[in-house]
Amino acid sequence: MKGDVEPLVRLARTDMAAVDRLIVARMQSQVPVIPLLADHIVAAGGKRLRPLLTVAAARAAGAKGDIEAPIKLAAAVEFIHTATLLHDDVVDASQLRRGKVAAHLIWGAPSSVLVGDFLFARAFELMVETGQMRALGILARASSVIAEGEVLQLTRAHDLNLDQETYLRIISAKTAELFAAAAEAGAVGAGAGDKAVEALRSYGLNLGLAFQLADDALDYGGSSDVLGKNAGDDFHEGKVTMPLLLAAARTRGREDAFWERTINKGERTEDDFRRARELIIGTGAVTTTLDTAYAYADAAKIALKALPAGEWRAALEKLADFAVSRAA
Amino acid sequence: MKGDVEPLVRLARTDMAAVDRLIVARMQSQVPVIPLLADHIVAAGGKRLRPLLTVAAARAAGAKGDIEAPIKLAAAVEFIHTATLLHDDVVDASQLRRGKVAAHLIWGAPSSVLVGDFLFARAFELMVETGQMRALGILARASSVIAEGEVLQLTRAHDLNLDQETYLRIISAKTAELFAAAAEAGAVGAGAGDKAVEALRSYGLNLGLAFQLADDALDYGGSSDVLGKNAGDDFHEGKVTMPLLLAAARTRGREDAFWERTINKGERTEDDFRRARELIIGTGAVTTTLDTAYAYADAAKIALKALPAGEWRAALEKLADFAVSRAA
Repeated sequence: MKGDVEPLVRLARTDMAAVDRLIVARMQSQVPVIPLLADHIVAAGGKRLRPLLTVAAARAAGAKGDIEAPIKLAAAVEFIHTATLLHDDVVDASQLRRGKVAAHLIWGAPSSVLVGDFLFARAFELMVETGQMRALGILARASSVIAEGEVLQLTRAHDLNLDQETYLRIISAKTAELFAAAAEAGAVGAGAGDKAVEALRSYGLNLGLAFQLADDALDYGGSSDVLGKNAGDDFHEGKVTMPLLLAAARTRGREDAFWERTINKGERTEDDFRRARELIIGTGAVTTTLDTAYAYADAAKIALKALPAGEWRAALEKLADFAVSRAA
Repeated sequence: MKGDVEPLVRLARTDMAAVDRLIVARMQSQVPVIPLLADHIVAAGGKRLRPLLTVAAARAAGAKGDIEAPIKLAAAVEFIHTATLLHDDVVDASQLRRGKVAAHLIWGAPSSVLVGDFLFARAFELMVETGQMRALGILARASSVIAEGEVLQLTRAHDLNLDQETYLRIISAKTAELFAAAAEAGAVGAGAGDKAVEALRSYGLNLGLAFQLADDALDYGGSSDVLGKNAGDDFHEGKVTMPLLLAAARTRGREDAFWERTINKGERTEDDFRRARELIIGTGAVTTTLDTAYAYADAAKIALKALPAGEWRAALEKLADFAVSRAA
C-alpha cells in the first residue's frame, strides 16, 4: 500500500505545536552558545517523527482534551534524539545534518558534545515535571540501549562479516528502541492500560526497523533505478548496512577483493559506488532488504489491532506503510 | 584547622562497599568495550568524594540501618561524575586522568563520548529504581547546570578579562553543583526534613567551592614553596583560574605582554610556568585564593549546625577543613 505521513501530521497539528513551543522554551540558557547551537539543529526540523509518535500513542490509546504529560514526554523524546544526533555527528565526523552544515563544524566538537549533554539533562528535567516515574524509566532504559547500540555499531561499522542478526540488533538498539520508547511512553503518560501500552511499544519498535531498513535501501537508490536524494552516503562512509552485507555474501568468491578494498581498506571512488550499486541491485539485495522492511511494517500494523479503531489508529497504519513505500 | 577525610571514610566504609558493588554491577554490558572503558576510569578510583557525600548526608540526617535509596543515588552520582570526566577529557584533549592514560587515547574519542552517554543513562535508570522523583529532579537539574558550566568555561577558558564573579559562577556550576546535589539527594533519599535537606545542600555547595579553589591554588604549589604533585597543569593548558586571574589583575600595566603571550597566544615554556608561579605567589594571589577557600569551608561548617550533633556531622566538619588544609 502507498502510505502517507500527512494524515497523522494533520491530526496531531495542535498537539505538535505545543510540543514545538516547549522545545524552544526549554533549550534556552544564559550561556549564549547553547540556544544558538541547539536552534541550529532543532530548527532545521527534520520530521519530528519520534515526538509525533509519543503524542499519537497517547491519542490512539484514547486520551482526550489536554495531554500535558505526553506533550512534555514528546519534547523530552526530541531532546534525547537531538542529543544523540549531536554526539553521532561528532563520532562519525559527519559533514551534514538535516541538509545543514553539521553543528560541530561551526561551533566545534567540544560544544556539540556538551550541548548534547545539556539537552539530554533537560530531557530528564522535563520528564520529572510529569511526575510519571514509569515513563521516565522507559526513556532512561531506551537511552542506555541506544548508547550500547552506538558503541556496538562503532566497533563493527566496517566489518563485512557482520551477520544479519547482529545488524538487526544494532539498528534495533540504535534506531528502533527510541521509536518503541517514544510510543510506549506516550501511552503510559496518557494512563493507557497494559494491552495498549504493549501494542504501541511493539508498533514503535517494528516501525523503527521498517524505517531504518527502507533508509538502508534508499541509500542505494531504493528499488527504482532513480537515485535517492542522498544516495551513496552509507557507501562513501564505508558503513555496512543490510543491502551491502547481503550483496557481499551473495558475491562471495567473486567480488571479495572489491568489498575488501572499498569497505575494509576505505579506498572508494564514485565509480566504486556505481559498481557497488549494480552489485547490490543485481543480486537482489535491495529487494530482500525492502521485503524485510515490509514484514516489519506489517508487524507494526498488526500490533495496532489491539487498539480501538479510529482516525488515530488509521493514521498510524498509513505511517507504517509510508515507512517503506517511500523507498519502493 | 587541619582537616581529615579519613574519619568520614571509616564511618562510611560499609555503605561505600555497597555503592562500589552497585557501580561495578551496573556498568556491565554485552558490548565488550563498555565495561572495559568504564572499568578503566571507575576502577582508577579517585576519592569517590561525591557518592561519599550522598551516603554521609543520608546518615547525618539521621538514617539508620539499610539505606537502599541513598546507596543507589550515590552510585548514580558517581556515574554522572564519571560521564562528565569522560566527556571533559575529550573536550580538553587531556592526556591523563586519575594518574592513568585518558580513556579516549586508548579507545578513541568516539567511544569515550558514547560510553559517557551510556553511564549517564544508567545513572537515571538507577534513580528510577529508587522511586524517588524529588531526588531524580535534583540530579537531573544538576546535570544540566554542569553542562551549562562546561560550555561557559569552554567559551571563556583563555579569557584574561574574566571577572571573579563569572569565574565563581563557572566553578559553582561545573564543580560545586554536583557536590550540592549529591548531598541534597542523599538527604532527600533518606526522607530528611526540609531544614536538613537545605543544610546539606548548602554544605555540599560550599564544600565544592572550597575544594575547587584549593585545587586552583595547589596548581601553583599551594601556599608553600613545595610544588604540588601535578602543579602546572592548569597553566600548561592555558586555563585561567582564580590565582592567575588575580595575578594578571594585580600586575596590570607591568606584565600584560607576559600573560597575553602565555595565556591568550598559548606560547608557554617551563620557564614561563616558573615566572607565572613567582608572580602568582608574589602578588599574594595564592593567599587570596586560599582565604576565599577557607571562607567557603567555614560556610560549609556553619551550614552543618542545622543538623543533629554526632559522629557523622563531626566527620563532615573535618572534611570541610580537609578541603583547604591540604593546600595550605
